[in-house]
Amino acid sequence: MTGRVYLDWNATAPLRPEARDAMVAAMDVMGNPSSVHAEGRAARGLVERARAEVAEAIGCKPAEVIFTSGATEAASVLAQLRGHGAVIVEETAHDALWAHFDLTDAETGNNILAMGLANSETGAITEPPEPVGGRWRYGAREAGMLLLDVTQAVGRIPWSFAWSGAHMAVLSAHKLGGPKGVGALIVKDGLDIAALLKGGGQEMGRRSGTENIVGIAGFGAACRAAMRDLEAGAWNRVAELRNILEKTLASGAKETIFVGKERARIPNTCCFATPGWKGETQVMAMDLAGFAISSGSACSSGKVRESRVIRAMGFDAETARSAIRVSLGPTTEESDVTRFAEAWLAAHEKFRRRAA
Amino acid sequence: MTGRVYLDWNATAPLRPEARDAMVAAMDVMGNPSSVHAEGRAARGLVERARAEVAEAIGCKPAEVIFTSGATEAASVLAQLRGHGAVIVEETAHDALWAHFDLTDAETGNNILAMGLANSETGAITEPPEPVGGRWRYGAREAGMLLLDVTQAVGRIPWSFAWSGAHMAVLSAHKLGGPKGVGALIVKDGLDIAALLKGGGQEMGRRSGTENIVGIAGFGAACRAAMRDLEAGAWNRVAELRNILEKTLASGAKETIFVGKERARIPNTCCFATPGWKGETQVMAMDLAGFAISSGSACSSGKVRESRVIRAMGFDAETARSAIRVSLGPTTEESDVTRFAEAWLAAHEKFRRRAA
Repeated sequence: MTGRVYLDWNATAPLRPEARDAMVAAMDVMGNPSSVHAEGRAARGLVERARAEVAEAIGCKPAEVIFTSGATEAASVLAQLRGHGAVIVEETAHDALWAHFDLTDAETGNNILAMGLANSETGAITEPPEPVGGRWRYGAREAGMLLLDVTQAVGRIPWSFAWSGAHMAVLSAHKLGGPKGVGALIVKDGLDIAALLKGGGQEMGRRSGTENIVGIAGFGAACRAAMRDLEAGAWNRVAELRNILEKTLASGAKETIFVGKERARIPNTCCFATPGWKGETQVMAMDLAGFAISSGSACSSGKVRESRVIRAMGFDAETARSAIRVSLGPTTEESDVTRFAEAWLAAHEKFRRRAA
Repeated sequence: MTGRVYLDWNATAPLRPEARDAMVAAMDVMGNPSSVHAEGRAARGLVERARAEVAEAIGCKPAEVIFTSGATEAASVLAQLRGHGAVIVEETAHDALWAHFDLTDAETGNNILAMGLANSETGAITEPPEPVGGRWRYGAREAGMLLLDVTQAVGRIPWSFAWSGAHMAVLSAHKLGGPKGVGALIVKDGLDIAALLKGGGQEMGRRSGTENIVGIAGFGAACRAAMRDLEAGAWNRVAELRNILEKTLASGAKETIFVGKERARIPNTCCFATPGWKGETQVMAMDLAGFAISSGSACSSGKVRESRVIRAMGFDAETARSAIRVSLGPTTEESDVTRFAEAWLAAHEKFRRRAA
């Protein structure tokens, strides 16, 4: 779409050229990875190469990577842990974790704490839970198992599964420049969990179904490219652009509330509120002006409601309803950010005049 | 792989050029279908266009199509029906249906009958269950609900969901020339089933998770191309090649047992047994000779065991262990089939001499 500026990387990142190339190449690999013949072995090789690439990016062993259709499917591992203990969910976690919030098994065993590493709406990095003798304390509860949703963080900040202490992690490819509809569940070596999808016994019996080899190839290539960018400091530049944006907005619209700015954040996310001016209205006005931004987490179909996450951070409903999110990436240009700020400040000026 | 002949279309079909083109085009659609801005709407448009293409191919309403990561995920709808009734599974059905076989709820309500429309190993078309007053009889049991796995049949024989009487159908894209890792669950209008994947609320709340838009675009395009081929009679030619193959094999190796030949079959599948000669050995010999064929259903990782399906058809274990499957498609050439027959008959001659 010519002339448009895409500033919604937390909803989905543009496909990286490396991922695209790997996907196009994978289209010529015709075999089923479960077939024993040469065509099948070629497909299997492609899946295993990608598994190693994902493992390297996430700091885990290849055997700990289970390919899924995305972070949502991966998070459904929580449903497979029924009977193990209650599922406690961190307040600002994604709906895909909240879907499994369940205190009914609180007496049966070890609680499981599910949390996001970074929040999709504000970019805030979640405070790690307090470790207490091999367990974690979260509020009044304790948990013996930790599941981390690292979707918004991997490739943007350094992180390692092995060093996190987590038992499980979930992520999707498309937030780091891979294709949509593929992701992974990382399960710590030695932890045995019943498969959600049963049948053919793929992924060592942990996830049945013929592998999405085009998507998996793109995921692996995106991981490799993301790590290269991260190590080259590409996200330091993103943080600078985010800071320029916030400074420009703050100087042009002094009452703007920057949500989560005082916290540790991933480098690319700017969430800001203008009480009284609905987020949806702003998103539509900016869309017409040529800018793709978001209100809310943009992970569900057509929901228009105040942000649960921003409310959980202590803001009132009016502020939450007025919040929008601008999220950048390594290919964002300084001019994208300044043009956006200019357009938004002009719209803001109109809003203020109408409101006065 | 130059010079090789791919005769394993029931394991996975080569990607159709139309699917490939649609996938490459979809890679430029960067938005998240849940986003309200122009980029999001473009992605949404692509998903809905594909939904209409799948619906047309399968003879259902677009709203009845729920995109999944494949037939295995789609079949997991059976797990969501727990408490509705027992899950009865037809003997020769795929492992992805057998995974949900469950008689524990036999007293709670309506039984669910799950069956394949065509068998992956033999190509045999399953006899429809006997209708009894709005229900179906299967053996000694009755069921009020029918789920059909149409993966091996759609695009190869005419079939319509609306006319089948089924409440649910499952299919994957890759068996009809779409990409691996995408499929659909078809649920009859008005039937309300709890989502397996919960979170963002995509697919009208019936399947959460960001849509695999590249895969879905390929699925839609493959459906359209498959229908065009079917209507143009491409599979009549496939059946002729299959018949040439069987005639050639039968005349060169008279004791060959053709499994399911006396039944109604999909046009492309030839399953044959040579008691005493292990199927795996034949697959490996043919692979070395340049031909990709299969033993068993080739849907799970490295399993080497006698075919449950062929045993269920009344054959002894030795015959089942010796069965191989040759499956063709619209791009198979007559020379592919005759070259395969020649190579197999030569190997068979060696086997007979060793066995003698």
